[in-house]
Amino acid sequence: MSLLVLGSVAFDAIETPFGKTDKIVGGSASYISLSASFFYNNLNLVSVVGGDFPTNFLNILNSRGIDTQGLQIKHNEKTFFWSGKYHNDMNSRDTLITELNVLGDFDPLLPEKYNDCKYLILGNLHPAVQSTLIERLKNKPELIVMDTMNFWISTAKNQLRDTLALTDVLIINDEEARQLSGEYSLLKASRIIRNMGPQYLVIKKGEHGALLFHKNEIFYCPALPLEEVFDPTGAGDTFAGGFTGYLAKTGDTSFTNMKKAVVYGSTMASFCVEKFGTEKLLELTDDNVKERLDLFLRLSDMGF
Amino acid sequence: MSLLVLGSVAFDAIETPFGKTDKIVGGSASYISLSASFFYNNLNLVSVVGGDFPTNFLNILNSRGIDTQGLQIKHNEKTFFWSGKYHNDMNSRDTLITELNVLGDFDPLLPEKYNDCKYLILGNLHPAVQSTLIERLKNKPELIVMDTMNFWISTAKNQLRDTLALTDVLIINDEEARQLSGEYSLLKASRIIRNMGPQYLVIKKGEHGALLFHKNEIFYCPALPLEEVFDPTGAGDTFAGGFTGYLAKTGDTSFTNMKKAVVYGSTMASFCVEKFGTEKLLELTDDNVKERLDLFLRLSDMGF
Repeated sequence: MSLLVLGSVAFDAIETPFGKTDKIVGGSASYISLSASFFYNNLNLVSVVGGDFPTNFLNILNSRGIDTQGLQIKHNEKTFFWSGKYHNDMNSRDTLITELNVLGDFDPLLPEKYNDCKYLILGNLHPAVQSTLIERLKNKPELIVMDTMNFWISTAKNQLRDTLALTDVLIINDEEARQLSGEYSLLKASRIIRNMGPQYLVIKKGEHGALLFHKNEIFYCPALPLEEVFDPTGAGDTFAGGFTGYLAKTGDTSFTNMKKAVVYGSTMASFCVEKFGTEKLLELTDDNVKERLDLFLRLSDMGF
Repeated sequence: MSLLVLGSVAFDAIETPFGKTDKIVGGSASYISLSASFFYNNLNLVSVVGGDFPTNFLNILNSRGIDTQGLQIKHNEKTFFWSGKYHNDMNSRDTLITELNVLGDFDPLLPEKYNDCKYLILGNLHPAVQSTLIERLKNKPELIVMDTMNFWISTAKNQLRDTLALTDVLIINDEEARQLSGEYSLLKASRIIRNMGPQYLVIKKGEHGALLFHKNEIFYCPALPLEEVFDPTGAGDTFAGGFTGYLAKTGDTSFTNMKKAVVYGSTMASFCVEKFGTEKLLELTDDNVKERLDLFLRLSDMGF
């Protein structure tokens, strides 16, 4: 049984108040699969890159147990490229460049062996691509986790609603939750969104933590106060990867275990923002993760 | 041994997206003492009102065990009046009217019997008035808790620093912490501010909860997601009152007990915002408080 990751593998060029990068490897599927690999090592990847993509990054993924047979390489085309600049508060950013390239007509092909998929995570992509992959799977996965973004909520709302109806868990940020539901109160928004399909909803609030909603239950996971948020790129994907990886590892999708998964997702995201791109994830050890989890437990211990 | 509350007792006129009020009773000391009275019943109040202030509100305070001998009534003057309008997101507001009236030359007189003060809470007022009260106490209280606001940080910074040096706990919001420290990162801000005097710092983040800092420890208390924030006026004071009232009740100022006090403060604040002004606090029962505390415990339970 495997965890299947769909999403982009891309180049990013990032500018923050702390510095700027040339083209570095990014993309939702890169962050998700790297983060999940700390918990689960039967990982399959469906994505697409161009001939300009460095093979050594694929070797890194493989070395972490991530199968890349489903990663199409279009040798005569170019990899998806995004460039953005973060504002001083790190809570908002301007997109400077978006070159879709290979993502423009991405057809998510599914290697036969990926049909043992038990857990599926749909990283941020056009919702029609997300639903196509679900349709191509011979068996419905036990758990489908989905991410999306403001762009799809405003430009592909109907297709987004169709995909959402097929999912079990939606992970979005507070701004997206308000946009998707039309409600400012996150409590009200959570009910409207869960009526669209997913029984579980995670609302990420950046430095303010994350909320998990299910039936009448709410769980509030704090974010760790950090010296600096060096680069927020990929933090949401890293959260989703840690969250889903932990669920796959434990094979338990109860509310209690989902809460733990949110804590692990938050733990992984807190590392991601400490360096540019995937740099911190690539140097992280299991001991680092364990130590930081302990910090989260202490941070939220009410003392009762 | 008593808990001494210094602050304003005032009239507010409030406009929110949900409606508007005529002049209703407000002021930092009103919210603080009402909130603290759910935990501790040896409460003394130092404040000032004009001849226009309704005696029935003083009767309400007395009926909740709040001594008002230190509440000066200046019969030929008018009570402090503030009027404000909240924006749609409830996170920002415009001040429409500020009439200082009796607060303009407020001299905080201390009844002799108030010298048994063990715990002192300095509600939001000019920092020179706050420090005057400290000087007039025959014995230094065991714990001095202080609140302040952006206005004093920008207009009376030196006096604020002098008062701050005398306190044990400072309670401010995230914007004020950034303004006072000159640091965006709350972790960095917390160190700078604690170097100014208080060993404990609480940073309130409204709907995003509250942080408690002490030495190398951090505690993050979530806020309860609510259907609506009806009126945020007084929520910070209500937090401070619940926080200090619980510490006075338990007589324990350890970090572990301070964490519980933050949870009780958050619990009380979550009620305050549900109706206009002090309305919700006045109808609240001890059972309501207990039930809501349980919600907070469930909200932050990580499941490990």
